[in-house]
Amino acid sequence: MKKKIKKVNAAILIIGNEILSGRTQDKNTAFISNWLNSKCGITVNEVRIIPDNEKIIVQNILHLSKKFKYVFTTGGIGPTHDDITAQSISKAFKVKYEYHKEAYLILEKYYGKRKFNDGRKKMSKMPRGSKLIYNPSSAAPGFMIKNVLSLPGVPSILTSMIENCKRYLIKGSKVHSKTINLYTVESNISKQLGQVQKKYKKFVDIGSYPFFRLGKIGVSVVARSNSISKLKKVDQDIKKLVKLKKIQILKI
Amino acid sequence: MKKKIKKVNAAILIIGNEILSGRTQDKNTAFISNWLNSKCGITVNEVRIIPDNEKIIVQNILHLSKKFKYVFTTGGIGPTHDDITAQSISKAFKVKYEYHKEAYLILEKYYGKRKFNDGRKKMSKMPRGSKLIYNPSSAAPGFMIKNVLSLPGVPSILTSMIENCKRYLIKGSKVHSKTINLYTVESNISKQLGQVQKKYKKFVDIGSYPFFRLGKIGVSVVARSNSISKLKKVDQDIKKLVKLKKIQILKI
Repeated sequence: MKKKIKKVNAAILIIGNEILSGRTQDKNTAFISNWLNSKCGITVNEVRIIPDNEKIIVQNILHLSKKFKYVFTTGGIGPTHDDITAQSISKAFKVKYEYHKEAYLILEKYYGKRKFNDGRKKMSKMPRGSKLIYNPSSAAPGFMIKNVLSLPGVPSILTSMIENCKRYLIKGSKVHSKTINLYTVESNISKQLGQVQKKYKKFVDIGSYPFFRLGKIGVSVVARSNSISKLKKVDQDIKKLVKLKKIQILKI
Repeated sequence: MKKKIKKVNAAILIIGNEILSGRTQDKNTAFISNWLNSKCGITVNEVRIIPDNEKIIVQNILHLSKKFKYVFTTGGIGPTHDDITAQSISKAFKVKYEYHKEAYLILEKYYGKRKFNDGRKKMSKMPRGSKLIYNPSSAAPGFMIKNVLSLPGVPSILTSMIENCKRYLIKGSKVHSKTINLYTVESNISKQLGQVQKKYKKFVDIGSYPFFRLGKIGVSVVARSNSISKLKKVDQDIKKLVKLKKIQILKI
């Protein structure tokens, strides 16, 4: 019996001047994308990095939330003046930006009443109707409103929270992948590889990426598909090509 | 005498399934953004990561090239079937996708006539009217057409080529930055920092980023501006706030 393939997609919206300026290297894209695929069968189809600017955040939230099943935002939900993600999303969806009762209580308990200052209180302000994404490492929750899930920018905090997004997500079919590392150059296999891609066009995506390892150059051929049986066929075809061309495979 | 400030902006379009899937960590954004600001006074205002898909590349090229002074693309200009950046940009600008004479000669010389196969020839096909961006490390040139500059995805090759983009770019005013690392938490300074930001709203962007170093938590306050004198004033204001709150500064 054939399993029906269910494609679910998402976009990531990285909000932060520090990423755009090159001061900070984004690490959240790779983490979220890998997690979504392996744990939820959700494929990230677009990523955008934008500045801490309300108008630009509003435009992007409206655009991406229409276009994709889910939108994950990172950054801009802390206590300082440049943290404007929650208020911008409220504006985009025309809902009130207000204290979330449960988030307020969580933070009040975490900091203690005396140390619960305005900056900390701000972290419990969200779009009205938000559901919380709990934060086991530093208490301040993320939130989900409509199909948008907002997470913090600090990678160690984000990774600690990601499992708590799961309950809100509809799962899709996982994309499986198969990598073969070859000691050759791309132009040596490009023609035949293109033929294999053509043959399995509808079912498998084949990518080819040069690498440099231990002083040798090579090519990683990566095949990705929802279907394991189709992947196996592609793998066999590539191994035939490798044999024909007498190419050495790097085993790792 | 006041120097007139000239703002020049750019977008980066990262083309590649391997970045979107999380298999490969993008390193080109931070490098290009830093280089553009420090060497050319150009500010990156948006980054997008999209798949190897002609229709999507065409849409994004058209959108971004209208919106920004320059667009830098990375990835998809190699010899294999999934390298479709050059043909997609040709389609976007409705120009012919054809062999570039000089690029063809460069590659023919590099590989030698006998080893100059179809895959390698493909790397000299570009949108008609392209100007070359020379490649000192692996010969295959990038290209510029209209306001779009196309570079390869492999970081070591891209970095070796970036200086050759300079001749095509109009320079702007550099954004200077000043970082103060404080041993405190964001919510301790958020109110006062917000006031400093308000005071210099038009001239300086202040960001605040938590860090963890040597087992201690802290906040990096980063001020960015075209004006060095305004930056100095912000620096003084922040140091006053630090003194008032008795916060320790991390010297590095």
